[in-house]
Amino acid sequence: MGLDDLFDPAGIAVIGASETPGKLGHDAMANAVAFDGSVYPVNPSSEGTLFGERFVGSVGEIDGPVDLALLCIPAPVVPEVLEECGKAGVGAAVVYSGGFAEAGDDGRQRQSRVEALANRFDIGVLGPNTSGFLVPGRNLLCSFVGEVDRVDSGTVAVIAQSGGVAHALAFQAQSEGYGIAAMVGLGNRVSVGFEEAIRYFDGHPPTDAIALHIEGTADARGLLETCRAVETPVVAYIVGRTGVDGFAASHTGALTGDWDLYRAGFKQYGVPTVPGTTTLLDSARTLGSQPRPAGPNVGVVTVQAGPGIIIADRLCAAGVPVPEFDEATADRLSEYLDGLTYAANPVDTGRPSPAFGDVIETVARDSGIDILLVYQLYEPSVGYPASALDSVAEQLDMPVVLATDGPEPGVSDAIAPLEAAGVTTVRTPERGADAVIALVEYVRQQRRLQEALPDG
Amino acid sequence: MGLDDLFDPAGIAVIGASETPGKLGHDAMANAVAFDGSVYPVNPSSEGTLFGERFVGSVGEIDGPVDLALLCIPAPVVPEVLEECGKAGVGAAVVYSGGFAEAGDDGRQRQSRVEALANRFDIGVLGPNTSGFLVPGRNLLCSFVGEVDRVDSGTVAVIAQSGGVAHALAFQAQSEGYGIAAMVGLGNRVSVGFEEAIRYFDGHPPTDAIALHIEGTADARGLLETCRAVETPVVAYIVGRTGVDGFAASHTGALTGDWDLYRAGFKQYGVPTVPGTTTLLDSARTLGSQPRPAGPNVGVVTVQAGPGIIIADRLCAAGVPVPEFDEATADRLSEYLDGLTYAANPVDTGRPSPAFGDVIETVARDSGIDILLVYQLYEPSVGYPASALDSVAEQLDMPVVLATDGPEPGVSDAIAPLEAAGVTTVRTPERGADAVIALVEYVRQQRRLQEALPDG
Repeated sequence: MGLDDLFDPAGIAVIGASETPGKLGHDAMANAVAFDGSVYPVNPSSEGTLFGERFVGSVGEIDGPVDLALLCIPAPVVPEVLEECGKAGVGAAVVYSGGFAEAGDDGRQRQSRVEALANRFDIGVLGPNTSGFLVPGRNLLCSFVGEVDRVDSGTVAVIAQSGGVAHALAFQAQSEGYGIAAMVGLGNRVSVGFEEAIRYFDGHPPTDAIALHIEGTADARGLLETCRAVETPVVAYIVGRTGVDGFAASHTGALTGDWDLYRAGFKQYGVPTVPGTTTLLDSARTLGSQPRPAGPNVGVVTVQAGPGIIIADRLCAAGVPVPEFDEATADRLSEYLDGLTYAANPVDTGRPSPAFGDVIETVARDSGIDILLVYQLYEPSVGYPASALDSVAEQLDMPVVLATDGPEPGVSDAIAPLEAAGVTTVRTPERGADAVIALVEYVRQQRRLQEALPDG
Repeated sequence: MGLDDLFDPAGIAVIGASETPGKLGHDAMANAVAFDGSVYPVNPSSEGTLFGERFVGSVGEIDGPVDLALLCIPAPVVPEVLEECGKAGVGAAVVYSGGFAEAGDDGRQRQSRVEALANRFDIGVLGPNTSGFLVPGRNLLCSFVGEVDRVDSGTVAVIAQSGGVAHALAFQAQSEGYGIAAMVGLGNRVSVGFEEAIRYFDGHPPTDAIALHIEGTADARGLLETCRAVETPVVAYIVGRTGVDGFAASHTGALTGDWDLYRAGFKQYGVPTVPGTTTLLDSARTLGSQPRPAGPNVGVVTVQAGPGIIIADRLCAAGVPVPEFDEATADRLSEYLDGLTYAANPVDTGRPSPAFGDVIETVARDSGIDILLVYQLYEPSVGYPASALDSVAEQLDMPVVLATDGPEPGVSDAIAPLEAAGVTTVRTPERGADAVIALVEYVRQQRRLQEALPDG
């Protein structure tokens, strides 16, 4: 089972396509038609067209290449339709409906039949019990949720155990203007699980980082081995610190794992873990976009002292070093600043002056600094020190993160060119610190892994 | 010293007003002119008008009531100008410039002079070393930061030790469409400190809750006593978990306190503490807008299971009970739901159906539930169960928090009427849980305080 049929199909059949708004087969079709390739609405009791595409009676009657079927049908008929798909040569299917392993003995039996059919016909099945997936760069919107076409193409592939969390993450990225490389809700994971999805998106050109949402999995070791084996940085949000096993089992048919053991395992296998959805996206964007730093030492430059204290405090509490600068740096900073502000690390520049760019470059060039984290409240009359940040990002090949707050829409407009130039931007001082903490955790873990490898 | 001259003046003098954009005296004047009352630009070397207001040579020459002076002048001339203000009968002043207690021996001496003058003339001095304050409901924009006029009037008074953090919070509220009742950056706290500001905003009609940002204070007990004495709920973000004392001292001239002691003290005095700026605003909005619950028990209703697990997990990890429902509730939920979803607490409704409102009301009426927390991914075709949420908020007098994610701008537009109806809305499952955690912490603390009180 390759996953190209699922994530890179030539044509799509929407089975159970419906003319009634609000029905799964309507809403899924409304999104699917955005696709660059062919999309076929399939329904034996419908005629005419739907969103400009002519209805077909069954998947076997489609005249053209169909790699992917979206099954917008109730659970009881899924097995027979999946068999039809298999016979028609369809290589992948999304099963949206619930009523499988998460729903008692009957459901488990039904899921076993689906699994057997998936194996027999070598169909990559996403779900059951999922809200689907998105690959915005290909307008591949295999979800029944409205307005997913608003989610732009970005650099992070979101792979979530829960379709709801997957969509929440996709829309968080949309509302902040970043987009995603892909979004996958795994659901009950009949044949497409974490490992398969991680390996696929490791080879997906737009994907620079992989963000995982995990409630639990029967094969934690396999997942960890996969994370270690891939080139793409992976960051994980593991839910289930407390015993919510009953609810989770009812959700995707999986028991949540032991949280502490999971966290320790991910650390050992080079995957930073984070405490929430917002940090998951910020960390993945940072890992994906920034170069690997030479070490964990952070230079903090802040225009407003208070947010700088928040950042330094948060970094230190997480064990990330905010070291003193070397003497040459300290001397130069004292020249640039007027003596009233604070020239140690974090550097408080005071309100932006023409020297702000020089301060940033001086800190970045300090012999003991590996990562640059800048905080600036956006002021429309001042703007950001964009050229200094660009040149640090480009010339010094050093990770640069800008944390900011400010009036909308000005701040959103002003950070867009910085993002384009390779600076990762986040809102709030805390999010800036948390993104850098994940970056440092990743670099430390990767270094430990490499040191543990035998020669050659 | 009353603070009406500061936060409710009849007229304002902008001393050091300037025609040069980017200068403090220009940018502060640009904001100040939005005020409903009189605003006078003061500068002995300028003639004509600035933003339509005629320049005056000195504060003593102003022909009209002036309660408040904004001192947009360098530190060395602050004492003499403050004396002029005192002689002219000005009752309050904002001193923006740095170069006082945070800047060595000279600065400390200068601050002592300012303090003596403030006492002698009974002037309420905000600062020095602050970016000022805002009372959006009166268009009172005493800040030099651009576009503060975009911050709407809301229900939370932000009182921050750092002017930078104060502005960051104000703009966070703006970007989410909520506004603030007031924003105050205290800076060096010559005569307006936490206690004075808290007491003032306790009596400020638009203020329903007070959000504190604290780096440290010499008189922690006085602050705590004040928090306990006021009617308005207070929530605090205390920075300084690690030793960032050197930087903090250079910032507002105050040492950061001992973090653990501070946190314990606030708990004892009925003030929930939170770990970041976002949670600070969410918690304060929730405390200010929602009724006091009868107890700490949370009923969670979720349309998407994954975010519901995140919420339940986070509540449980914080010691907030998510109890089983009583038998009558469980029976009714089984009728409303199709048996495939999860009728225990949290309730997973599956995709919104006509019964969604009934599910919400059933949970809210459960004998063991005190607080309702709903998560729903916003779908434009489905909307929110607004009438059910409204009726719970209004008829049951129970706190109702809706956590949500979804496509912008649809989600922002759709939550606005819910906010107006008394439901507190936040983005992301984690923020929903965190807001409820602060509410429960507050109620538990208040109850302990009342039990500890002697009769009568």
